[in-house]
Amino acid sequence: MIEIVPLRGVPEVTPDADLAALLIASARAAGGFRELDVVVVTQKVVSKAEGRLVPASEKRAAIDSESVRVLRRQGEMLISETRHGFVCANAGVDESNVPDGNIALLPVDCDASARRLRSRLQHLAGVDVAVIISDTFGRAWRVGQTDVAIGVAGIEPFNDYVGTPDKQGRIMTATRICVADELAGAAELAMGKTDAICAAIVRGATVTRGRAAATEIVRPPEQDLFR
Amino acid sequence: MIEIVPLRGVPEVTPDADLAALLIASARAAGGFRELDVVVVTQKVVSKAEGRLVPASEKRAAIDSESVRVLRRQGEMLISETRHGFVCANAGVDESNVPDGNIALLPVDCDASARRLRSRLQHLAGVDVAVIISDTFGRAWRVGQTDVAIGVAGIEPFNDYVGTPDKQGRIMTATRICVADELAGAAELAMGKTDAICAAIVRGATVTRGRAAATEIVRPPEQDLFR
Repeated sequence: MIEIVPLRGVPEVTPDADLAALLIASARAAGGFRELDVVVVTQKVVSKAEGRLVPASEKRAAIDSESVRVLRRQGEMLISETRHGFVCANAGVDESNVPDGNIALLPVDCDASARRLRSRLQHLAGVDVAVIISDTFGRAWRVGQTDVAIGVAGIEPFNDYVGTPDKQGRIMTATRICVADELAGAAELAMGKTDAICAAIVRGATVTRGRAAATEIVRPPEQDLFR
Repeated sequence: MIEIVPLRGVPEVTPDADLAALLIASARAAGGFRELDVVVVTQKVVSKAEGRLVPASEKRAAIDSESVRVLRRQGEMLISETRHGFVCANAGVDESNVPDGNIALLPVDCDASARRLRSRLQHLAGVDVAVIISDTFGRAWRVGQTDVAIGVAGIEPFNDYVGTPDKQGRIMTATRICVADELAGAAELAMGKTDAICAAIVRGATVTRGRAAATEIVRPPEQDLFR
């Protein structure tokens, strides 16, 4: 069985905050962190802790500067590629759940942010957890958004079945499940968007330990049929 | 807290099987179904129960006949639009986890399949559950696949925040979370691809009761920037 536990009561995070310590305090109500827990933290709170806020008046300039390439334009909204390689609306720049008059940018290096947070959690809590930084992205062809992984530390982003047999013994040739995105989406189910919950623990999922990164989830442009 | 419980021990499903009865028997080990449980069932097992298998020798013809439009072609693989409107590899036709010499097609009407299964589960178990039929789809821009919802019965596919305030009181204008896809992906985390687990319960997620359908997740072509 898998459990998804929202971490409640984390106070508004500022650039001087020790996010790991706040998460640990919040996790006490859930019995604390355990070995192999996947700690999913929203981009918004990581960006706040890293001081990645700018005045809302600079939104247009921020979106332009965070975009390395524009794929589509629809009214005020761009679908663009960020310097990390992510394709999303407005290069991940948005104002929801940030202090009035500000907008939040994505972390400069989301995987490095995940690694730092994981390291600090391990230092303070003394257990080996994985960290995923999640953000809410739209998709081609399907309405609405889901939370996906933009930073990963401590686990492989994929459960890769290529070359392994299915239950009929047939070798699978293409099945490579992006569990990091499924974990981010599962955590969103426990966090919602209005309750000021910025993190959740996913406990009991089959994941593979590894020194991996969310940048591996970015499809290389030369293999991408839709970029 | 959300729990995701895999349903183990469902035998190989054939066209004369009562899938609802098999799921109920399997759910006994998890204490049975409860009100508001979301029962996620893989497309493959639904297709088997509905006799949507054809000989593997007809694969190319089946893919062509299941596709209403081809978006991209890469070697043997098509990215095409199914008659339901889903954009996926090979119109959802594949051979993994089906009896040797066969391939499985998507259900003819995945939402109708979900409604029938929900109705039968309610009849046999006496509780009001929701049903999601899941399938494993690739995505534009991101490597790997995740499980998404292709059939929905009993819940709204979206948690729609458009017009509601965020925690700063700012009205959200675009946030419409496709919880059906997140639920399908969360269930995949508990099922995996090799253990012959064809269903899981997601219990405790915030969902909205409703007479909804997965076809609502299909982005209308005229609003789709990438079709």
